[in-house]
Amino acid sequence: MRRGGALERPVIAYETWGTLSRTRDNAVLIFTGLSPSAHACSSPADPAPGWWEEIVGPSRPIDTRRYFVICVNSLGSCFGSTGPASPDPETGEPYRLGFPVLTLEDVATGGAKLLDHLGIERLHTLVGPSMGGMTSLGFAVMYAGRARNMLLISCGARSLPFAIALRSLQREMIRRDPDWAGGSYAPGHGPVTGMQLARKLGMITYRSAQEWEQRFGRERIAEERQTGDPFALDFEIEAYLEAHAQKFTGQFDPNCYLYLSRASDLFDIAEHGGSVEAGLKRVRAERVVVIGVTSDFLFPLHQQRELAAGLRQGCANVVLHELPSIQGHDSFLVDMDRFRPLIREFFEAAG
Amino acid sequence: MRRGGALERPVIAYETWGTLSRTRDNAVLIFTGLSPSAHACSSPADPAPGWWEEIVGPSRPIDTRRYFVICVNSLGSCFGSTGPASPDPETGEPYRLGFPVLTLEDVATGGAKLLDHLGIERLHTLVGPSMGGMTSLGFAVMYAGRARNMLLISCGARSLPFAIALRSLQREMIRRDPDWAGGSYAPGHGPVTGMQLARKLGMITYRSAQEWEQRFGRERIAEERQTGDPFALDFEIEAYLEAHAQKFTGQFDPNCYLYLSRASDLFDIAEHGGSVEAGLKRVRAERVVVIGVTSDFLFPLHQQRELAAGLRQGCANVVLHELPSIQGHDSFLVDMDRFRPLIREFFEAAG
Repeated sequence: MRRGGALERPVIAYETWGTLSRTRDNAVLIFTGLSPSAHACSSPADPAPGWWEEIVGPSRPIDTRRYFVICVNSLGSCFGSTGPASPDPETGEPYRLGFPVLTLEDVATGGAKLLDHLGIERLHTLVGPSMGGMTSLGFAVMYAGRARNMLLISCGARSLPFAIALRSLQREMIRRDPDWAGGSYAPGHGPVTGMQLARKLGMITYRSAQEWEQRFGRERIAEERQTGDPFALDFEIEAYLEAHAQKFTGQFDPNCYLYLSRASDLFDIAEHGGSVEAGLKRVRAERVVVIGVTSDFLFPLHQQRELAAGLRQGCANVVLHELPSIQGHDSFLVDMDRFRPLIREFFEAAG
Repeated sequence: MRRGGALERPVIAYETWGTLSRTRDNAVLIFTGLSPSAHACSSPADPAPGWWEEIVGPSRPIDTRRYFVICVNSLGSCFGSTGPASPDPETGEPYRLGFPVLTLEDVATGGAKLLDHLGIERLHTLVGPSMGGMTSLGFAVMYAGRARNMLLISCGARSLPFAIALRSLQREMIRRDPDWAGGSYAPGHGPVTGMQLARKLGMITYRSAQEWEQRFGRERIAEERQTGDPFALDFEIEAYLEAHAQKFTGQFDPNCYLYLSRASDLFDIAEHGGSVEAGLKRVRAERVVVIGVTSDFLFPLHQQRELAAGLRQGCANVVLHELPSIQGHDSFLVDMDRFRPLIREFFEAAG
């Protein structure tokens, strides 16, 4: 592991769609954001809709008839890959806080090891939205030449203090929940309240004020749902956050969340070369598309501009798209009318 | 109280500076944001610096040699005015959640009653930053003709869902702290953790990403302050939030915080006339200055634009200033180089 420690025989969970070509030149690797699993798209083996169902699939923008698409569950996560919730082979007990410090470079290394295992030397395209975009940058500087093209979405060359503050507070909400118990909660139990609070703050940072103004305004919830408690749910926006928090409960292991959240804070491409500029200069790819969203305040537009400018040092063909979506950081998951054509166009141009 | 219930012999705490003129035409009333006391400025009786020390005082922009300046502690607060922490005369015990639902109109009424008590029929100027700005609007529609001039800073005609979401989450952090005990904590004790988390989220929403980028970047805290805990304070921004949260602890009563926070969510000038436009049309003042800040995401600039446009229906002289401060919602407390001259100019023009 980059910051010390080691994992014995770690597992990397992944899913694939499509067929690897004989020349092994059509592989597309997707690194995910903080919370998704490797299930980007439904398949005969798992017909449940994936987290990027409208983007990945036959005839979809990342066309699985044409590309061999791989999505990995990040090292440190809890959907099959080894993470703090996995048993430590030494003790048989979950690693919990005994898991070594996780960095996005470690997550990238997990992806590189998977490619070795699959016998893929060079990716057609490396795709990374959000945290996955930073992981992709880490991959590109550490494994030079392995990504022919790159598609970087709503990410940055490093985490800035505003995003760090928000994530640090989310982690504190979890750690301050008495049920966190220093990370030693029983599997499946744990800091439900802390996770719900953290998820609500997450939702607030993933969307935008403008979207909510249009969607909810000052609408109140139905009268029959109102209670006498003056601090219970009242506005629709409060009910919306509550519904999202409830849905998230039990889905994600709290310790895994802490590790991946902190890994995001730690990421800084400047660690690879001494400065952001020098780090980005090391990236070599034939074609890079960077997509940013005007209403994203977790990874604001100036970060994608910095990224595009820095990548132009070492890559001949870098295109930056600034999208006026109003759904904030989450736009790549919901504003399909804007993202679909751009991603389709990217792959058509990349050939 | 606007939403039902009544308070028996409530107290409104206030401070004054300067001298009321014989014609009683030089009174300036300040409604505060959510957390300050009435101590806007130091005085011989209380030499501690006030929360608006650089704005209020002799020769300062709100010149106490010229004006009789009054600052009230909001009804529902805990710095002398009656609020949820005050004893209910019926039981002798603190009101706690037995306090009636609080609105900013009730806070405004507290100010109006104080003016009656002081024998002031008409204010020279009503000044309201942040929550105090919404309170001032409530005052203006309910007590027509009592404010000759108005200075509204970093506020809006109503609370929008993004700000409601943030405040609702702050309240939930407090209510979910087991030490809140349904509001029945012993005086001076209570949900310290919840209050600290809420304060941290508050600080995040009061400042701006740009400011923190310039101020903190990715600076780490001194090595000697670092511990082995991978989730302890690491970045300077985390230490900054922690210091602010610690400072806030014990200063503000948690139940009072809940009531004032919720009062902010409830405010909507549309309740006075059927629409925002109709509500604002009722305001009559000779001169209104509205100040907004580009980096404020709690009360974004389009809210001050809406305010200025709406107030122009009933007020001949409305000026809107859009300041490029990078300190977000808190700019009126810290970006003195921009606020001092504007406020000085306002009072010079108002005569």
